[in-house]
Amino acid sequence: MRISELSRRSEVPIASIKFYLRDGLLMPGTPTATNQADYGDAHVRRLRLIRALRDVGGLDLARIARITAAIDADRLPPHDVFGVVQRALDPDTEPPDDDAFRAAEADVDRFLDGVGWTVSDGAPARRSLAEALAALRRLGRPVDATVFRRYAEAIEPLAAWEVSVTPTDVDPSEAVERMAVGTVVFERAIVALRRLAHEHFSRARSRPE
Amino acid sequence: MRISELSRRSEVPIASIKFYLRDGLLMPGTPTATNQADYGDAHVRRLRLIRALRDVGGLDLARIARITAAIDADRLPPHDVFGVVQRALDPDTEPPDDDAFRAAEADVDRFLDGVGWTVSDGAPARRSLAEALAALRRLGRPVDATVFRRYAEAIEPLAAWEVSVTPTDVDPSEAVERMAVGTVVFERAIVALRRLAHEHFSRARSRPE
Repeated sequence: MRISELSRRSEVPIASIKFYLRDGLLMPGTPTATNQADYGDAHVRRLRLIRALRDVGGLDLARIARITAAIDADRLPPHDVFGVVQRALDPDTEPPDDDAFRAAEADVDRFLDGVGWTVSDGAPARRSLAEALAALRRLGRPVDATVFRRYAEAIEPLAAWEVSVTPTDVDPSEAVERMAVGTVVFERAIVALRRLAHEHFSRARSRPE
Repeated sequence: MRISELSRRSEVPIASIKFYLRDGLLMPGTPTATNQADYGDAHVRRLRLIRALRDVGGLDLARIARITAAIDADRLPPHDVFGVVQRALDPDTEPPDDDAFRAAEADVDRFLDGVGWTVSDGAPARRSLAEALAALRRLGRPVDATVFRRYAEAIEPLAAWEVSVTPTDVDPSEAVERMAVGTVVFERAIVALRRLAHEHFSRARSRPE
């Protein structure tokens, strides 16, 4: 199909498609004539992925590019699909360099040991959790990392189930795509469900029978 | 204290403080001399709040401004603290205008009825959930909103507990602050915990005993 048809089917404007082609997020089409190319279903699928990661996941183009690069990689180690996605989603900013943050990090490390999860030292989500803890303390809440215990208990069976239903018989590039979508789209859903449940229970509390 | 001391105690650069003053996110200090003002603990606290919402919550200044405006409002209806925070956190973009999205919205509405949560029609998180569902479908997953059932079941007792431990005897402006922090900081924590649990269970699966 031509780029106009690709734009229609993917619901992505032609200008954005050209931009993604230039930046390598979208693989080139098959050249047919000067300045024209033929695109296929793989291109439609890729554009929908980019759109989902951007609009639903709120990812910036640099992070989307890391995910599409991993999908397009020829020799992706199957056992590292997980790490590839996590590092691609990492916000990629410098960690804070102060004592309060380092104390929060050490506290989070002890907490995760206590929960019994085996997690690599460099996992970006470790730092993310430490930042959340440091922020709570800076705001005057006298908490340690055990403030996350109930959250970990609620999330653990859900995450175990999610991993158990993830197919293992797909190739690494498809696995990266599924995992990236599953991570960001369901994060959005979890956040939304929590806010909806908050509204429900707040109402129930403010209007007792 | 002077602005230099305020900057040191809040760990926010002076240029940013001046910016927040200009935009009304930070209340003015008490004028002491030409071009000088005196700041107090309330200013330190406000700057830490802004920093937490920005760095940990990833909120843009427009949304932070809506939260600080609600905190500063003289006559905030106590029963609407919840709605104020949710609307302030709303991404504020136009909803998609296509059949696929409207079908997803209707599906999410039915799902929430089934879950038994009482949620206002205009709750931004309803739309957020519909966007997540529409994205999954666009990516070729043949799902309806019941794909969120396990997530709702995991989140429900957690959200009920969170609401139950939220103090009711604080004034509305403090309630807005607590709720905004609790919503965005623990969202970040939940997302991080889920990613950490994914790593743990993925490892456990790929290296069976």
